[in-house]
Amino acid sequence: MSDASGPSFREAAHATAELVSDYLAGVAGSPVWQPMDPAARQALLDLPLPGTGRELDELLTEMAGRIMPSPMGNGHPRFFGWVNSAPAPAGVLATLAAAAMNPSSAGGDHADVHLERAVVRWIAELVGFPHAPGAGLLTSGTSMATIVCLAAARSRAAERAGWDVRADGLAAMPPLVGYLTGETHSCVRKAAELLGLGSRQLRAVAADAEGRMDPAALRSEIAADRAAGRLPFLVVASAGTVNTGAVDAFEPIAEVAEQEGLWLHVDGAYGAFGVLDPEIAHRYAGLDRADSLALDPHKWLGVPVDCGCALVRDPAQLRDTFSLVPSYLRDEEAGGLGWFSEYGTEQTRPFRSLKVWATIAHRGRDGIAADIAHCTRLARRLGELVAADPQLELLAPVETSIVAFRSRPAGLAEHQLNESQLNALNRALPLAVQRRGEAFVTGTVLGGREAVRACLLNAATTEADLAVLLDEVRSATAELMTRQ
Amino acid sequence: MSDASGPSFREAAHATAELVSDYLAGVAGSPVWQPMDPAARQALLDLPLPGTGRELDELLTEMAGRIMPSPMGNGHPRFFGWVNSAPAPAGVLATLAAAAMNPSSAGGDHADVHLERAVVRWIAELVGFPHAPGAGLLTSGTSMATIVCLAAARSRAAERAGWDVRADGLAAMPPLVGYLTGETHSCVRKAAELLGLGSRQLRAVAADAEGRMDPAALRSEIAADRAAGRLPFLVVASAGTVNTGAVDAFEPIAEVAEQEGLWLHVDGAYGAFGVLDPEIAHRYAGLDRADSLALDPHKWLGVPVDCGCALVRDPAQLRDTFSLVPSYLRDEEAGGLGWFSEYGTEQTRPFRSLKVWATIAHRGRDGIAADIAHCTRLARRLGELVAADPQLELLAPVETSIVAFRSRPAGLAEHQLNESQLNALNRALPLAVQRRGEAFVTGTVLGGREAVRACLLNAATTEADLAVLLDEVRSATAELMTRQ
Ligand SMILES: Cc1ncc(COP(=O)(O)O)c(C=O)c1O
Ligand SMILES: Cc1ncc(COP(=O)(O)O)c(C=O)c1O
Repeated sequence: MSDASGPSFREAAHATAELVSDYLAGVAGSPVWQPMDPAARQALLDLPLPGTGRELDELLTEMAGRIMPSPMGNGHPRFFGWVNSAPAPAGVLATLAAAAMNPSSAGGDHADVHLERAVVRWIAELVGFPHAPGAGLLTSGTSMATIVCLAAARSRAAERAGWDVRADGLAAMPPLVGYLTGETHSCVRKAAELLGLGSRQLRAVAADAEGRMDPAALRSEIAADRAAGRLPFLVVASAGTVNTGAVDAFEPIAEVAEQEGLWLHVDGAYGAFGVLDPEIAHRYAGLDRADSLALDPHKWLGVPVDCGCALVRDPAQLRDTFSLVPSYLRDEEAGGLGWFSEYGTEQTRPFRSLKVWATIAHRGRDGIAADIAHCTRLARRLGELVAADPQLELLAPVETSIVAFRSRPAGLAEHQLNESQLNALNRALPLAVQRRGEAFVTGTVLGGREAVRACLLNAATTEADLAVLLDEVRSATAELMTRQ
Repeated sequence: MSDASGPSFREAAHATAELVSDYLAGVAGSPVWQPMDPAARQALLDLPLPGTGRELDELLTEMAGRIMPSPMGNGHPRFFGWVNSAPAPAGVLATLAAAAMNPSSAGGDHADVHLERAVVRWIAELVGFPHAPGAGLLTSGTSMATIVCLAAARSRAAERAGWDVRADGLAAMPPLVGYLTGETHSCVRKAAELLGLGSRQLRAVAADAEGRMDPAALRSEIAADRAAGRLPFLVVASAGTVNTGAVDAFEPIAEVAEQEGLWLHVDGAYGAFGVLDPEIAHRYAGLDRADSLALDPHKWLGVPVDCGCALVRDPAQLRDTFSLVPSYLRDEEAGGLGWFSEYGTEQTRPFRSLKVWATIAHRGRDGIAADIAHCTRLARRLGELVAADPQLELLAPVETSIVAFRSRPAGLAEHQLNESQLNALNRALPLAVQRRGEAFVTGTVLGGREAVRACLLNAATTEADLAVLLDEVRSATAELMTRQ
């Protein structure tokens, strides 16, 4: 560990800069993704623990030879899978500097900690969420941000009911009930399970045809739970669902939450930054009424993974939920706010704020808004292309930048596929597309129907890429039909 | 976001390589830490959200000018605070490549995922913990690894008691009780609170003079809880406490855990890698009998923050606790193991394995063992130096690489400080040392006595640095005595 200041480190740093520049310059011209060669995969899995060390240049050669050629694919302009973006170049470089400085952003008086306060505020300002100092922190993603926010919601509910949940736990408390929809991301269920609330205490409230939570149904579910002696405490709305990008109608939900004393949490992991596009900003009305908002700079902003963010209306809620300042971490310097580690689950915390700072500062608010509008425009265009093709079927309106559709090959009347054949075809379709190496989509299930979904997050994607995507879907469909 | 492949990115990458090399080359010759200039700090806190973007070179200039000059200090050979190490150079470079590739190591068929399987095994092999494929994953730190492990412990206990804790939560279950000591790291309490168990259900078991849990006391606490209708389920032992580096005697605790059907979790965040030093390896006997082990490559190994690791004996325990594979994340490729996201709290997961791989491969097992032995040897030497100085007092035996002591200035009989004055002095001492800029220690409280502690993690630290540290402690003591 002692050669970080020697000449060999400097040479290796430049060599890494070259490797990474070549890599990024080559992404768009390479296959989006390819299955790994089974022998190469097994060799990685079986890598023996090295007994002796090796020089940095040897390591870089190995990295370039066996790791970098097998990426996930999410730097490519035709990667449309899940919600994984291309890395913002400024964020990539910031990551190097952050690792060299290597602080723990738990707290204290060093630049990383103060910068995190600033960029958390920036994130709140970008999406129009009210912000008080201390009312948020960066996390490893929205899954963790959701755990943080729901823990705060649980604390507030327990306190109102006269319980000290931190000291006494949930044993012997009445069940706390949360409300969501069938399209709410699974991280909410995971958080509820981790927090000991139980997934059976989550109610999937009825939704309209676009998947938006029905406030009247919410109200009556709450009433039923109260009547049964349970404690309704939480409602979760989505600012962009993972399957179709649908945005809940926040105003009426916030109305119910306020009247019923529920904590309103919004999952904006993927979609919250969509509010920056004036074309769709109206969908987000009422987002600012939430008690908490989880969102992912590592999604639409392209901040290199990992980077999520938890924002809350009232900073005291987080600190009351998590603070446990041990004596060896006393802090006499941090003004009134204390340490970030008092606001969440992590003690040692990485310097995530530098890559957020660099990513936002490189594009600026205007550049980010333009990139986002580019993606929503392309998504709407893709929706039109799908709708115009009789062999494809759009399965949900395009509200943000996700397009959910399926292949519906025409044929002679006697060869028309029934629903179960369509499902089999579309279930196999994403992998068939992926294997061709030209475009990457993933699948999902919508109302029982197998669907292909394309998520647009990359400002480098063009209309020509959409045409390639649909050609690939058609070709892969034909392949699968022949094989049948 | 579209210029990652342009020439300006390559230039900026080289410029960043220079910045980072200069930074690391300059660390040892700079003050360890200095309080930030109040105006500079405020300017960071107040940074306005940029409306328009800026070129990469401008950003680098700003980063070099206002962020990099105010580090935490933990790259310096005389940084002895908390448990924060200098970054391993190979790990720093790996971080850049990981950010450029930017996968999510949630799962799938790409190099990062398979590499994580290998390095998790490496970590288990390094510390001698039994390893089955799938029985562990990288996390953001030990705080998160502890949450993961304790959730698995909770699942197993609930299942044995006939409860489905994921579905039904903890409401109406009998209280689950865990056992630890007064020296157990606070992350265990935090995890118990988050999991809804309640901190009052954690019993601080009596310990011997060195802080090691007393197995007989453990047994009688368990009996008392059973008699009261509670469910003992967990015992937490420490492989290196944060305050003194003490290692619990694992064999007798494992014996009790086995007989009583408790889950044995070991917190090895800081100290587990100490087993690599043959001089102290005997202290770790029985570590391999734990049900789970949390440890931090971002501590003694110097892997750049963040990187923790959760290891479990039985991979099924993790998957049963967390798996919730949503339809859009189906996996047909990953062999029998499924996705990492089924084994923990994170969905999108960063490419942490590359920096672990690079760090371990650069030094090799032998180099790591040598670095660790260097630190424990220096710590013992520091303990001797403290013990030999009548104005200093060693407060705990040096078991691993942490030295806890206090300043005890001599004087004429009538000027001898009483305990409360000694506490006031030693409480002020760490910050007084820090402000002088030559060495960095932090404080803690041991059995009611304020203590200074020095944690040795950096292989670049020399005996000469120890002399500087003690001189600084003496000078800062004199300063504080004069001010009184
Ligand atoms: C709508 C939504 N919520 C939550 C998550 C989980 O976020 P993360 O993967 O950052 O934990 C995702 C991830 O795809 C998502 O799309
Ligand atoms: C003994 C011990 N356990 C747990 C932790 C928490 O680990 P982390 O900061 O990686 O969450 C620490 C951190 O200092 C520690 O020293």
